[in-house]
Amino acid sequence: MAEELTFPTGIGTSDPTTISLLGQDLAGDLMGTVGFGELAYWLVAGRRPTRGEVRVFEAVLVALADHGFTPTAIAARLTYVSAPEALQGALAAGLLGGGSRFLGVTEDCGRFLADTLAQAGEVTDYDALALDTVTRARRERRLVPGLGHPVHKEQDPRTPALIRIADEEGLRGPHLRLFEAIGRVHPQVLGRTLPLNGAGVCGAALADLGLPVDLLRGFALLARAAGLLGHLAEERRRPLGMRIYQTVDRNAVYEP
Amino acid sequence: MAEELTFPTGIGTSDPTTISLLGQDLAGDLMGTVGFGELAYWLVAGRRPTRGEVRVFEAVLVALADHGFTPTAIAARLTYVSAPEALQGALAAGLLGGGSRFLGVTEDCGRFLADTLAQAGEVTDYDALALDTVTRARRERRLVPGLGHPVHKEQDPRTPALIRIADEEGLRGPHLRLFEAIGRVHPQVLGRTLPLNGAGVCGAALADLGLPVDLLRGFALLARAAGLLGHLAEERRRPLGMRIYQTVDRNAVYEP
Amino acid sequence: MAEELTFPTGIGTSDPTTISLLGQDLAGDLMGTVGFGELAYWLVAGRRPTRGEVRVFEAVLVALADHGFTPTAIAARLTYVSAPEALQGALAAGLLGGGSRFLGVTEDCGRFLADTLAQAGEVTDYDALALDTVTRARRERRLVPGLGHPVHKEQDPRTPALIRIADEEGLRGPHLRLFEAIGRVHPQVLGRTLPLNGAGVCGAALADLGLPVDLLRGFALLARAAGLLGHLAEERRRPLGMRIYQTVDRNAVYEP
Amino acid sequence: MAEELTFPTGIGTSDPTTISLLGQDLAGDLMGTVGFGELAYWLVAGRRPTRGEVRVFEAVLVALADHGFTPTAIAARLTYVSAPEALQGALAAGLLGGGSRFLGVTEDCGRFLADTLAQAGEVTDYDALALDTVTRARRERRLVPGLGHPVHKEQDPRTPALIRIADEEGLRGPHLRLFEAIGRVHPQVLGRTLPLNGAGVCGAALADLGLPVDLLRGFALLARAAGLLGHLAEERRRPLGMRIYQTVDRNAVYEP
Repeated sequence: MAEELTFPTGIGTSDPTTISLLGQDLAGDLMGTVGFGELAYWLVAGRRPTRGEVRVFEAVLVALADHGFTPTAIAARLTYVSAPEALQGALAAGLLGGGSRFLGVTEDCGRFLADTLAQAGEVTDYDALALDTVTRARRERRLVPGLGHPVHKEQDPRTPALIRIADEEGLRGPHLRLFEAIGRVHPQVLGRTLPLNGAGVCGAALADLGLPVDLLRGFALLARAAGLLGHLAEERRRPLGMRIYQTVDRNAVYEP
Repeated sequence: MAEELTFPTGIGTSDPTTISLLGQDLAGDLMGTVGFGELAYWLVAGRRPTRGEVRVFEAVLVALADHGFTPTAIAARLTYVSAPEALQGALAAGLLGGGSRFLGVTEDCGRFLADTLAQAGEVTDYDALALDTVTRARRERRLVPGLGHPVHKEQDPRTPALIRIADEEGLRGPHLRLFEAIGRVHPQVLGRTLPLNGAGVCGAALADLGLPVDLLRGFALLARAAGLLGHLAEERRRPLGMRIYQTVDRNAVYEP
Repeated sequence: MAEELTFPTGIGTSDPTTISLLGQDLAGDLMGTVGFGELAYWLVAGRRPTRGEVRVFEAVLVALADHGFTPTAIAARLTYVSAPEALQGALAAGLLGGGSRFLGVTEDCGRFLADTLAQAGEVTDYDALALDTVTRARRERRLVPGLGHPVHKEQDPRTPALIRIADEEGLRGPHLRLFEAIGRVHPQVLGRTLPLNGAGVCGAALADLGLPVDLLRGFALLARAAGLLGHLAEERRRPLGMRIYQTVDRNAVYEP
Repeated sequence: MAEELTFPTGIGTSDPTTISLLGQDLAGDLMGTVGFGELAYWLVAGRRPTRGEVRVFEAVLVALADHGFTPTAIAARLTYVSAPEALQGALAAGLLGGGSRFLGVTEDCGRFLADTLAQAGEVTDYDALALDTVTRARRERRLVPGLGHPVHKEQDPRTPALIRIADEEGLRGPHLRLFEAIGRVHPQVLGRTLPLNGAGVCGAALADLGLPVDLLRGFALLARAAGLLGHLAEERRRPLGMRIYQTVDRNAVYEP
């Protein structure tokens, strides 16, 4: 076999007696010892997180897992109604809604903060940087990711909770500090006060954990996978998908 | 609005100041307190697991998360190569391989054990029940789910590890006991010794946790979502998908 | 490169000046000459269909493309609302509902008829075979695929239309004849008259075209892909997905 | 039911005796009369295409259906290997690769041409407009979509074929003319001659048909759905997915 035909990976290998994951003995060193959130962090970051990092990370996953009916939860339930024998399809259908509008805010916000910090160099005054950033965004008619929420118009309860947890673990870093500063200064520029939303604060916290901003959406998807399983379990016990479909179909009117 | 047009759910609701998940205050009671695996269990089972249940459950998720290249991991990487802007699509493509052949064993094994136990009523002798079960399966030319592994021909290291963890937490219940008994007695019937595989023991352990057997595949999918994110993170840092594609394409031969 | 590392395919190859598809010159012999339905048939069957076969095949695709709101169409629209930048995700989400309950009837019916004919050997009396088949299905408490429809309680208009088209093309073969016979005789066994539904007659017609019964669902999916694109085009012009979501969310009630 | 709870659609409705699609009687007016490509066009454009439009449109679908192994075809085959019971999942996995890199060129090129024409107003000299456009793209370090191909380095055979067909049908409109002009003038600016690729010319032709540029990717996906079914049919007859997986797995090397 030609030399170039190798496929290097640091994730996992196995031989007849051992399964190795991330260079560890899966059965001996990971199972029963490492939590699932901890493993997910390790898989993506390529390094084992500290206990404090795991706590902040799992708080993010818990925050993003679910909050009731969403377009993605409904899509998953409708797919389960149509193809109940293929649970993987219903889950995948739900995750496919994890794009720019719904689950994208976490990644957009993390990237926005990371880009701003990278351009700024060392930061001594977060409020000044935030004021400059929001002013420029407004001038360029761009939205600031993580500002505003359709339901939590004054405060998204996840935001102070996550900041507190990060602070307790010594992980309230530059992304969260800049995000908080945006929350303080934006009314001066926009002329109204918007809440810092939960998806945004999660992106800030994940970026402070050193996770790659291009993959932040991936954590939102992982969190949502648990929420979608909850919806599918509930759909199995107490079906709603058919009722949702019929509500639409019975109120359909033909309009060319 | 007519009375029947309501959509009851026990998963989540929110109002301007509060997000409720599973009847709890998400920000105040869950974030930072409840782990992600614990929340996933709670979402599906509809009840908060004990600390021991969480440990066994997370050991299962860790066991099933990944073990290197699989058809599903490769499918996810190839999809990421083609559409890197839509991470949700790459993750969904990987999960769609979670069907009968690869991720299905966990669910098949849990269901097989649950059905056997349901028919048997109270069990006093697991070896006798196992012997009867394997004998009947052989007579009906059906495979016993969870027996055999293409690589771990003597022992799958996950199997004793998970049994030990379940035992430590007092959760080595009838499904695991029956599965172990199948491991002891099947050579008498089949004339050769096969290992109890890791996917099967995970199904047995999840069934002993009281989780619905129709949804066991869902936990394998959740675990695999973390593994797939690991592959996609690695694909981003050290791309392989294009090389895999080219290996196939350059060795393609036309045969009508 | 070792000899075994070849990947034979009869679908397509290309070199710097030519693209070959199904052994034909794509640019010179197929584009502008071969219709899209004809190509789809050729790709799956591995042989070029006759003009009459194309007409019946396209009539099936037209029959299955869409009939308004379905769970799959709604799932696609909701996914588009959430991730409008990834049209492929919305289409995939819609197709994932193509399982046992909605799009499965075409394949189930084709397979049922093919199995029945294979067991029967040469058929001289379709009504006698149908009577025997329906009687046995009833005794075994199995449903006869293709019988009954929630809306078209007397007659599904697609059924006589497709039988007429197949007849015009000389392609009213044993699967359609058996299906028609089931339509005639089942009231004697079941004590009530059910319509032969459109999904079922499509399965019968595809089986008479010699297409592999294991892949009949694939044609239903191809047809539905066109219908879903229609829904997504309409969603873009006249959005409904957000209204569907809000109808559910605003009428949500918390019930543990 | 409150007045606002209606869901207007022009796609389809049905009642006990009739199925209406696009305002037509599906069974009486469409089946057997309207081709599948014609119906797909009608569904998206909201108007029935002429015979010439159908010929150009189907030539595009034929051009884009398949050209052998692609990352998406391989992803679909690997998913089929893992979950053969859910054909819809394998098809969906293949389509999910229809993003920016592989199937995106058709849409990108159509949009690029449409935007250029919209800014230009009435065009009297396509070469001058093309020269200006390519010059500006180069200055802004942006690629011109539709230029270049990894295999067809001199000429993509689909390009002259599709231009000829459009010309024969009187449908060689401004998008194709501008695209051809780009083919003529770009060497002056870029200093080398690149081919106009097949995906690009398809985007130009679809835009000349008046189809919405935001949905051009949808037609590439529809075309590819037929190609993927061809791959799945071949995978069923002559399996390759397992060999592809094993080629990767057996040549895996662990590298942290």
